[in-house]
Amino acid sequence: MPTFDICFSPELLPLFTLQGRVAVVVDILRATSSIVTALAQGVTHMVPFSELADCRAMAAQGYLTAAERDGRQAEGVDLGNSPFGYLDGVVPVRGRAVAITTTNGTRALHLSAAADEIVVGAFLNIGAVADHLRKLGKDVVVVCAGWKGNFCLEDTLFGGALAARLQADFDTTSSDATLAALDLWQAAQPDAAAYLLKSSHVRRLNHLEAHKDMEFCLRQDEYAVVPVFREGAIQAV
Amino acid sequence: MPTFDICFSPELLPLFTLQGRVAVVVDILRATSSIVTALAQGVTHMVPFSELADCRAMAAQGYLTAAERDGRQAEGVDLGNSPFGYLDGVVPVRGRAVAITTTNGTRALHLSAAADEIVVGAFLNIGAVADHLRKLGKDVVVVCAGWKGNFCLEDTLFGGALAARLQADFDTTSSDATLAALDLWQAAQPDAAAYLLKSSHVRRLNHLEAHKDMEFCLRQDEYAVVPVFREGAIQAV
Repeated sequence: MPTFDICFSPELLPLFTLQGRVAVVVDILRATSSIVTALAQGVTHMVPFSELADCRAMAAQGYLTAAERDGRQAEGVDLGNSPFGYLDGVVPVRGRAVAITTTNGTRALHLSAAADEIVVGAFLNIGAVADHLRKLGKDVVVVCAGWKGNFCLEDTLFGGALAARLQADFDTTSSDATLAALDLWQAAQPDAAAYLLKSSHVRRLNHLEAHKDMEFCLRQDEYAVVPVFREGAIQAV
Repeated sequence: MPTFDICFSPELLPLFTLQGRVAVVVDILRATSSIVTALAQGVTHMVPFSELADCRAMAAQGYLTAAERDGRQAEGVDLGNSPFGYLDGVVPVRGRAVAITTTNGTRALHLSAAADEIVVGAFLNIGAVADHLRKLGKDVVVVCAGWKGNFCLEDTLFGGALAARLQADFDTTSSDATLAALDLWQAAQPDAAAYLLKSSHVRRLNHLEAHKDMEFCLRQDEYAVVPVFREGAIQAV
């Protein structure tokens, strides 16, 4: 039975073997939730950047650009980091490529390069990701983007929720991180949004009136898209 | 109100500010549990080493030596890593100094050097540690030794149990790690030993018939000693 492990921070990735395994990169608030939403809305592919300047420069190649600074859409780009930017119709996104800036998420994606496949996970596509992982049948490592490298509750809850869906097909008992995430996911029932309201990151978001984003990012199975990161770009598998 | 944070692995310590704070180093199975037991039994001080050879060399200076390899007492030393070595009377320890080898614990102690004070914590002395932290009144970071740098349940549970005791006096809500540890400590009730039987590390210990150690290491408030690590040596404050 393939194993299921969770890496709580990109800083801990050197302790994990990714070769021969599938990495599921997750940054629930909000990078990977936005990526899943974007591809589900017909975005052709996305290229993640750490630096705003690199992201902006992609406009010259016909890319839409998405970036945020201090919780608000950055200047001189088309979209912020909210998934609603891909839903509200203000900027038409279908058929477009998007360059995105995301510090934590980009770092997690790049540090996962050694994995056989890098899947982008979110609550929004958790069922589709689970199906894809079952099909691949390889060992799984969930890579939590975290908050500036620190442990964060929302990515951990995703790891627990995914482990709960895969308990019949994967060994979810050999990793203390997975055992903890499963118990935290259990503790968060029946209302993960209410549970997360106490988390430090969500309170930061609340401060910026982004509570609506948080509730959306916790919806499960909104989309069936499975984005994978290959050769610098993210697209649906 | 001073803050209470938990660092789940020594690998994450670079993300934490230790200056001006108190570090509580914990390696429940079994380094810090054994240190607390040893000092409570009248050991004068202990010097931790990463390497067995360095530890053994201290015998020439009149130290008792304690080390373990693959779950059993190493050859050519006086004690293993079990707290019962300080209790069973086979080797008289009162009034002696002890050199100990502990990979995870030593690393955590040394990496915590920037803290204002480094306290050695275990369930065995958790109440005394809590009182000491209240008296100091400074921000606290619990440094989990982990298992080869990885997240482990038993050290996390200690962090949650300590946070639960200090909720009235410290801000235990600003760190997602502390929030998670509090919930895991809650999930582990009413029988933390039964809860930990499922953890990966404990199953490794079980394999080596060290279940008795585990149950002892989870006893709370057996001892009132507060060991601190200063200038390379651990002694009661």
